[in-house]
Amino acid sequence: MSRLRLRMMMSVDGYTSAPGQSAENPFGVGGMVLTEWVFALRAFREEHGMEGGEDNASTQIIEQHFENIGASVMGRNMFGGGPGPWGDDPWMGFWGDNPPYHHPVFVLTHHPRESVEMEGGTTFHFVTDGLESALAQAREAAGGQDVSLGGGGTTARAAIAAGLVDDMLITIVPVFLGGGTRLFEDLGGAPRRLEQVESIAAPDVTHLRFRFL
Amino acid sequence: MSRLRLRMMMSVDGYTSAPGQSAENPFGVGGMVLTEWVFALRAFREEHGMEGGEDNASTQIIEQHFENIGASVMGRNMFGGGPGPWGDDPWMGFWGDNPPYHHPVFVLTHHPRESVEMEGGTTFHFVTDGLESALAQAREAAGGQDVSLGGGGTTARAAIAAGLVDDMLITIVPVFLGGGTRLFEDLGGAPRRLEQVESIAAPDVTHLRFRFL
Repeated sequence: MSRLRLRMMMSVDGYTSAPGQSAENPFGVGGMVLTEWVFALRAFREEHGMEGGEDNASTQIIEQHFENIGASVMGRNMFGGGPGPWGDDPWMGFWGDNPPYHHPVFVLTHHPRESVEMEGGTTFHFVTDGLESALAQAREAAGGQDVSLGGGGTTARAAIAAGLVDDMLITIVPVFLGGGTRLFEDLGGAPRRLEQVESIAAPDVTHLRFRFL
Repeated sequence: MSRLRLRMMMSVDGYTSAPGQSAENPFGVGGMVLTEWVFALRAFREEHGMEGGEDNASTQIIEQHFENIGASVMGRNMFGGGPGPWGDDPWMGFWGDNPPYHHPVFVLTHHPRESVEMEGGTTFHFVTDGLESALAQAREAAGGQDVSLGGGGTTARAAIAAGLVDDMLITIVPVFLGGGTRLFEDLGGAPRRLEQVESIAAPDVTHLRFRFL
């Protein structure tokens, strides 16, 4: 069965971005601290055309990220380019001509746009009728493989609140952001148990993977 | 230097108790799920006069809990007995005649009460002039050793928000409580880095220890 797999970075106080999120500060003001562990990794740097970096216990997280993934879903903020209509010379994403997805990516937006085929197998599709529609299209495109949901925080929070996530990897980063976008916001209902599938202690961060029971 | 060491159990969605906290449900309705990992441990059961239990990666958490601790501080809810004046036959705590502290314990309350000397070296002192006063008294009583802050959630949250905590051990329990008492509530200010000192993967839970930089 095709599962929806969520991967997010979160501060100890529960935020996926700091206050003041904008095109210049996609993780909010000072929120890039959430990503330092990943930029330090050789595996991540290679994937994004950068030199150097180290191997450590977080490397497996990068290597496993797209294992058995056939399609991705992301929010508009994660694709980037700011809010509003796309314009004549539209933003093509943060990842250059050959994005590291190599599969169809469904971008949630309020503004219609033609699909864009990039190098290396990544095609960006723009979905204007909501998260559940994007997920249905992604599952169809994934051809039996899993679907990855990478964020941003608002999209991830909506998917969790709607009970759509099957597998959740959270990287806990040792920082207090003090405010911003919470990943888990007043879910309500009776207590709901998860299964801790993996707990990986890495330099500076811990990766926790949960399955919904 | 005498440090303030906080130890808390927290749900994945960031709560230290579920909604509906009361004398009958000290962790809220359904919130006892936070404590199952500790009741399963032989080290904890022995300390509290119960038989059976297992040894696993969480055992060291119990064994280290009171290492170099000279005094404790706790909120009224954690001491228990319900809100309001203490009455003629006052509640003596959840821990029987020989509580597992074996050092002075300072209980925050709005209602004055004489100190109570228990068996085994535990003396409960009742402090009516606030958290900082209780901490100052505990540091004095600790004679150079550290002070432990065990909760409950409201007291822990206040201590974190006031910047009083030096060392913080959080046990992340795989459950969504959906609401209740948050440990980290709108701390505000600029992002503040912590140091991840330990990350211990145990059956069902993960223990994360942070130092404030």
